Amino acid sequence: MRSIPDSIVRLIEEFSRFPGIGRKTAQRMAFHVLKSPNDQAVQLAQSVMDMKTKIQFCSVCHGITEDDPCGICTDPKRDASSICIVEDAADVYTFEKSNAFQGVYHVLGGVLSPLDGIGPDDLHINGLIDRAKPGTEVVIATNPSIEGEATSLYIAKLLKGKSVKVTRLARGLPMGGDLEYIDDATIMRAMEGRTAI
Amino acid sequence: MRSIPDSIVRLIEEFSRFPGIGRKTAQRMAFHVLKSPNDQAVQLAQSVMDMKTKIQFCSVCHGITEDDPCGICTDPKRDASSICIVEDAADVYTFEKSNAFQGVYHVLGGVLSPLDGIGPDDLHINGLIDRAKPGTEVVIATNPSIEGEATSLYIAKLLKGKSVKVTRLARGLPMGGDLEYIDDATIMRAMEGRTAI
Repeated sequence: MRSIPDSIVRLIEEFSRFPGIGRKTAQRMAFHVLKSPNDQAVQLAQSVMDMKTKIQFCSVCHGITEDDPCGICTDPKRDASSICIVEDAADVYTFEKSNAFQGVYHVLGGVLSPLDGIGPDDLHINGLIDRAKPGTEVVIATNPSIEGEATSLYIAKLLKGKSVKVTRLARGLPMGGDLEYIDDATIMRAMEGRTAI
Repeated sequence: MRSIPDSIVRLIEEFSRFPGIGRKTAQRMAFHVLKSPNDQAVQLAQSVMDMKTKIQFCSVCHGITEDDPCGICTDPKRDASSICIVEDAADVYTFEKSNAFQGVYHVLGGVLSPLDGIGPDDLHINGLIDRAKPGTEVVIATNPSIEGEATSLYIAKLLKGKSVKVTRLARGLPMGGDLEYIDDATIMRAMEGRTAI
């Protein structure tokens, strides 16, 4: 049995590291690079390096940016008295895309997860406490997972007594969903959180 | 709405070009690169460039190799009188992995597809005719698709009268499959090709 040339195997291994990319997909990707014109491969390699060089973390919100502080933190039109707390830098763009929030963000950089050895000191929590001046609204937007909920409760507790309004995203039926296919936990939250119409 | 920094958008676009990678997966991949240590990103970029520089096409079989002619074509233990015709260079490694074939290969570099403007001159067919000396067995292993079948018939016709034995891979039930879930076309081929036990 003759095996795939080393340089391709190395690229397959690099691609396999990505989340959600298995060995087979990685192999297809590597062969795709092989077949595509040389300048496309150069561009791919260049884009990877370029991004790593240009992108830094905002010293205020810990989001990603090409200039520090980031465009959101320095935008005078954003409401600095409303801070949305998210787990990851990518989450910021989920809100920005929906245009649902006009305040500023604070990226935790993860969630509390004792099993993985991630405690409060591993997250950007201290900076948040400093930013949450009295009168601020803090919207906790961690993921609706066990760790996300625990992190949100932890932060709410820290902010208690600081005259900060702490809220979190509503739980309920996703738009376009079908009652028949929605899990019990979501149905329960939707019922608990029912609103008058 | 604030959008994702340019250098990340460019990387997302590069990743979106891969087959089977949608915009959302590409975005996850880009953010993964962002979060991973710098030297891993360097390694990824390096592997892409490295592969493009080192890999070339074998002048005999048109497979991929780091040295021309490739290790399979120059291996004296391989049976040069048996040539397996495949569409893509990646297909060679599917056979090599299974250890099912001890002959040599010939990579077409695609299949006939008039709708996409791919004719016989776009494939490595002429070289194949030269390689198929009298007494050779040519195993056609194009994909079991419409284009693959058409290409296999075209090649079989070309080789007619050259005292070359032309065969193709058996069609039938995939191992581990379940009759209930197998499509009609496959069932039909399996019935037509039934063998004595």
